[in-house]
Amino acid sequence: MNIVLFESDEIGQPLVLSDERAKHILGVLGRQKSDTFDAGVIDGKRGKATVDSIGTESISLSFDLQHEEPSLYPIDLIVGLSRPQTNRKILQEATSMGVRSLSFVTTERGEASYATSKLWTTREWRRHVVAGVVQAFTTRMPQVSFGISLKVALEAKANAEVKIALDNYEADLTLSEVDRGSDSIALALGSERGWSGAEREMLREHHFQLAHLGPRPLRTETAVVAGIAVLLR
Amino acid sequence: MNIVLFESDEIGQPLVLSDERAKHILGVLGRQKSDTFDAGVIDGKRGKATVDSIGTESISLSFDLQHEEPSLYPIDLIVGLSRPQTNRKILQEATSMGVRSLSFVTTERGEASYATSKLWTTREWRRHVVAGVVQAFTTRMPQVSFGISLKVALEAKANAEVKIALDNYEADLTLSEVDRGSDSIALALGSERGWSGAEREMLREHHFQLAHLGPRPLRTETAVVAGIAVLLR
Repeated sequence: MNIVLFESDEIGQPLVLSDERAKHILGVLGRQKSDTFDAGVIDGKRGKATVDSIGTESISLSFDLQHEEPSLYPIDLIVGLSRPQTNRKILQEATSMGVRSLSFVTTERGEASYATSKLWTTREWRRHVVAGVVQAFTTRMPQVSFGISLKVALEAKANAEVKIALDNYEADLTLSEVDRGSDSIALALGSERGWSGAEREMLREHHFQLAHLGPRPLRTETAVVAGIAVLLR
Repeated sequence: MNIVLFESDEIGQPLVLSDERAKHILGVLGRQKSDTFDAGVIDGKRGKATVDSIGTESISLSFDLQHEEPSLYPIDLIVGLSRPQTNRKILQEATSMGVRSLSFVTTERGEASYATSKLWTTREWRRHVVAGVVQAFTTRMPQVSFGISLKVALEAKANAEVKIALDNYEADLTLSEVDRGSDSIALALGSERGWSGAEREMLREHHFQLAHLGPRPLRTETAVVAGIAVLLR
């Protein structure tokens, strides 16, 4: 199962052979002139593309994109910035599961250097998001923000119908016991070392209920996938 | 949160400085003579260890292990062998979530080379399992098998109370709609390319219900975590 995604302004333009997607179409998918493959426009329609010609520097494609893709799930994820390798997994996995936004926030127990990783200072983060969209065989991209404080992220979710923070220490409820509502859910997870006392206080002030995923501490990326799965069950 | 695990026959023996655990105790945890740290015996008790002395070649430890650890969850995972990097994540994440067994099976769409990776031919697989146990701050190891056929693995689960195979193509139920029973669950997932038609037939013959995790195709390691989370909710 593979889909190749394009920006809307790339449609109708030649695709240079050095582009990773051209290599994928010709090399991995083994397509030749007149062959088709699954394609889509980022945040647009999905359908088929045809290889019209293969030149010495680029390939020409034509598109027949008819499928309107379904909306993303109304789940907004707030995650403490962690080590880049952890955040890469979260970007890809949470995107593949279909959340509509991801906010990576600075926390007291996260290291300041996490926010200045090349994952965030270059456009590398976007590559992992696109990989998650491709994995899910769709075109819709979640909104991603990073480097804002937990407080700003919580304030931005003031209107969410259900607000939950995962916490292993002070939560009385399991995540599956929390009423999921019918409209929108904000789900907050700490950095790898969890929430500070002041952050728990701030979460409660912003009407986030603390909930847990059972007694076993999980890696942040495992908790993200498990938490989304329980909310989407 | 860190726990250092020992085999039962290591208790009372000096720990050489070149051992990764000695480096962790002294380097990462920064423990000195008379300091304590969280420790446990694999499949045994959990408690505290004390650094009694630090020599030029080894350290001496004493143990006070009182906590009997809870049993693992009665979930037996059957997973199609995939690329080693995928299986490494599954070994660690499924272990951290507390399943009691993992069987990595050959499937029609898996490549034969997957079974002969050094992950399996050396004891490397066990390192990832131990990392999952450490992550969950406990001592209990799941049972791990690999290289057997899907058929043999399904026959071995003949007595499981609930038998489920995740499938994106022919399942009518979502995983959360399946009755979880009260005793034991066998959960089967295909290799990265999913089940063949013959394998679906075999799953049905062995009374595995097909269930899905929603319309979005997920990576195998994401589906493993999501599936376990939904069963444990």
